[in-house]
Amino acid sequence: MECVDLNSDIGEGFGVYKMGDDEAILECVSSANVACGWHAGDALIMEGMAQRARDLGVGLGAHVGYPDLLGFGRRKMEISPKEARCYTLYQIGALEAFAKSYGFALQHVKLHGSFYHQASSDPNLARAILEGISAYNPKLIVLTLSQSLMATEGQKMGLKVAEEAFIDRHYLASGQLVPRSHPQALISDVSYALERALKMIAECKVRTLEGTEIEIKAHSLCVHGDNPKALEFAKQIRTGLEKHGITIRPLRSILGLSH
Amino acid sequence: MECVDLNSDIGEGFGVYKMGDDEAILECVSSANVACGWHAGDALIMEGMAQRARDLGVGLGAHVGYPDLLGFGRRKMEISPKEARCYTLYQIGALEAFAKSYGFALQHVKLHGSFYHQASSDPNLARAILEGISAYNPKLIVLTLSQSLMATEGQKMGLKVAEEAFIDRHYLASGQLVPRSHPQALISDVSYALERALKMIAECKVRTLEGTEIEIKAHSLCVHGDNPKALEFAKQIRTGLEKHGITIRPLRSILGLSH
Amino acid sequence: MECVDLNSDIGEGFGVYKMGDDEAILECVSSANVACGWHAGDALIMEGMAQRARDLGVGLGAHVGYPDLLGFGRRKMEISPKEARCYTLYQIGALEAFAKSYGFALQHVKLHGSFYHQASSDPNLARAILEGISAYNPKLIVLTLSQSLMATEGQKMGLKVAEEAFIDRHYLASGQLVPRSHPQALISDVSYALERALKMIAECKVRTLEGTEIEIKAHSLCVHGDNPKALEFAKQIRTGLEKHGITIRPLRSILGLSH
Amino acid sequence: MECVDLNSDIGEGFGVYKMGDDEAILECVSSANVACGWHAGDALIMEGMAQRARDLGVGLGAHVGYPDLLGFGRRKMEISPKEARCYTLYQIGALEAFAKSYGFALQHVKLHGSFYHQASSDPNLARAILEGISAYNPKLIVLTLSQSLMATEGQKMGLKVAEEAFIDRHYLASGQLVPRSHPQALISDVSYALERALKMIAECKVRTLEGTEIEIKAHSLCVHGDNPKALEFAKQIRTGLEKHGITIRPLRSILGLSH
Repeated sequence: MECVDLNSDIGEGFGVYKMGDDEAILECVSSANVACGWHAGDALIMEGMAQRARDLGVGLGAHVGYPDLLGFGRRKMEISPKEARCYTLYQIGALEAFAKSYGFALQHVKLHGSFYHQASSDPNLARAILEGISAYNPKLIVLTLSQSLMATEGQKMGLKVAEEAFIDRHYLASGQLVPRSHPQALISDVSYALERALKMIAECKVRTLEGTEIEIKAHSLCVHGDNPKALEFAKQIRTGLEKHGITIRPLRSILGLSH
Repeated sequence: MECVDLNSDIGEGFGVYKMGDDEAILECVSSANVACGWHAGDALIMEGMAQRARDLGVGLGAHVGYPDLLGFGRRKMEISPKEARCYTLYQIGALEAFAKSYGFALQHVKLHGSFYHQASSDPNLARAILEGISAYNPKLIVLTLSQSLMATEGQKMGLKVAEEAFIDRHYLASGQLVPRSHPQALISDVSYALERALKMIAECKVRTLEGTEIEIKAHSLCVHGDNPKALEFAKQIRTGLEKHGITIRPLRSILGLSH
Repeated sequence: MECVDLNSDIGEGFGVYKMGDDEAILECVSSANVACGWHAGDALIMEGMAQRARDLGVGLGAHVGYPDLLGFGRRKMEISPKEARCYTLYQIGALEAFAKSYGFALQHVKLHGSFYHQASSDPNLARAILEGISAYNPKLIVLTLSQSLMATEGQKMGLKVAEEAFIDRHYLASGQLVPRSHPQALISDVSYALERALKMIAECKVRTLEGTEIEIKAHSLCVHGDNPKALEFAKQIRTGLEKHGITIRPLRSILGLSH
Repeated sequence: MECVDLNSDIGEGFGVYKMGDDEAILECVSSANVACGWHAGDALIMEGMAQRARDLGVGLGAHVGYPDLLGFGRRKMEISPKEARCYTLYQIGALEAFAKSYGFALQHVKLHGSFYHQASSDPNLARAILEGISAYNPKLIVLTLSQSLMATEGQKMGLKVAEEAFIDRHYLASGQLVPRSHPQALISDVSYALERALKMIAECKVRTLEGTEIEIKAHSLCVHGDNPKALEFAKQIRTGLEKHGITIRPLRSILGLSH
């Protein structure tokens, strides 16, 4: 029986501000990346997400971002490896406090936005973050871009690395995502996205924009729920996968780890 | 052999801003209350304080404050019990991440500034905070004002409560501190402060401003190090206590708890 | 010919976060209170609001709030009169920069949320704020609760005071608003709200919850647009007023001031 | 009679945090760059600096920085030209509010830290900022690095540009500053710094690290006062210049502008 994890970013509101339908997306995914109050999210939202994730059996992850609420963590910021390590530890700990208060533990860590991209190209940044995670809890799963620097470095350190693929984005032959500025960056057709997802799971392959096929290892598929259309897309992908006999399971189960 | 804990607030800088001589005060006390990035402190400072506290065997505590860096957490803010609980959990977790990355655990929690005072007079706030601490880790020591609402409520819940006394402040017959606005609020004479400290430890009593004596239970004496004079005062108190045969030990040892 | 101003709070988003339909509400009102980046709003939003207000001939006002984005400026904070003055000046200046860059000037100032309420009951706070406004530009209109302390103190200082009334809220015989916690605090029936508005304009009177009538002077009626229903309500009030021959005009025109 | 402006960064504290001796440096310079609450500074400090600058006849300038208090505005952040424009306008307006409340106007604008450097190398950023300043008040002086992109672009737009030179830093033959990482980046010898300053003023030339001489136009010399040593250095430079018959005057006077 084949299985895959579905992950999504949640808890991205702040104070009175709402972002997406957290409740609905939590019912659709098996792992959730919760914003930790730096680029988005706040303590009350985090508490709510932790409680709900536990109730639903969804794996809880810290979505760690830059200290830039104004820019939603999407702007490049030049931070040192030491800062990268400390910012990551701070946010992981803050979220785990809520999990702990409900009697469970964090499943994974995922970097957000510009931090995700910077760490995928800067080995010093990547290693500092990974060493921080390893020092904190070497059993914490690192969820990151398939075949990225973060994945390679994390594996070298003996960390549990889960690789994710994007079903609503086209890939280049290089393995990188087609930049959002490109007219064919995004995939909005659900059947096509589903077909790609099934191929990724069954064959570990994806057809690139150039027409070639590359290998892709997807422990987890990233879906979005920050608007009604994205949420509908995510739900249809989940239903489609299940119809094809794919079981949706949290990362820890995909990686064969116990609770 | 008699013993007492000395605690002090540290790690109160932010970014390029310095506050006090953290290194010197860490060498003087047995328990340290580290700011967690809300009213003061930042992730890099917290990491440094955690590392140094571990090296020196100083008990590490989260100094939990209002989200008010501009006001240093000293201004009254009206927050709900739910906010109080979540703000506390967030900050405790953030600091414990650094302790955990160095292989040890938090010893205690202390509220800061206006949060400390609000929680000492509002039972709903106090209980929400204490329930949060209890859910997170019932072995975490709550360091609070001697005979305050926080102390009583914490004990009722079965939490480990450590009561602190102030050696540089006068008390009222009611057990409250003489407000800072009063000309005799502060005690700057070291010998007098030391004499009071010794009486607190030996007899559990302190002479009030009104001239009467009240009972005071001091597991810990709070000292300050936010300026050279305060630091010198703290050092002399420590030396003085030791000359009188008092051993300075972290809270967990005072309360008879293992690591 | 009778006339009145309609005012509303706008520009209350932050970064990626949206709040209400600013464009639609700007087309409905004659004066707009723009958040200045402290309790809500940011520099880009402020620029957009300033530009659009100028294009539509809507009077631009600074909506001045507490430094509490997390609490949307709705939580009580204890600030000093000096802080109140400086926070007000800072925010007024920040917004006026955008008006100035488009060749026009601020029309008014209105306090937001908890700051609005605190200043309505604390004479020292009220005077400090009003003195700041007076020192900055004595021609700036102060938009405030009808018959409040801010109104009285402002008039004493020779400032231009515009008094506002709420058409979706019930009043007490004391002149205060029925607290939101009361089941009859809010008025959701448009025809009833319109009837009240017409009576306020024609007779300067409003029927209270207790059944008596009190005097109320309304240079401006406050409407909300932070959700589709509120926006629809506001539009219907505007249409209803115009059908009854009431002209909607910016505050400066209501007070008989030139541009 | 020859004259020059001395400028320094002031008002860089935040809340309870102090930075440098603002009072002493204000008595030493003729123009002051005041932090506007984004990378440093707060409303109370800004008010104090505005009042004191007016009393001393020191030209008041907005020191405009990135929204990064944690990094003191020294970290690279990728911001758009539109953001650059709006961030600049916001901060200028906020500071001018305090000047206006004391009956005077801003003299100049200077970018801070990483914003200063980014704008000196990115023409789109530079132009967006300069267009914002021009739209706000074309009489505002732009204080910037001698012969930089900001200077050239500002002049093209018809803005008043004042060029500054650094007396405690070595230059490269390219006209750029020797990076701080280089062992000879900084000049700590006062007599040597003074000699260089005099040569800049008399001959518009400076000897570079490579030994050649380059042209440098210095309307203003930048001095620092963020620590006792820097302050002493600044004072000795001022005294030295005056002994050599150089008059220290605010920028507007150097550029021949009236108040």
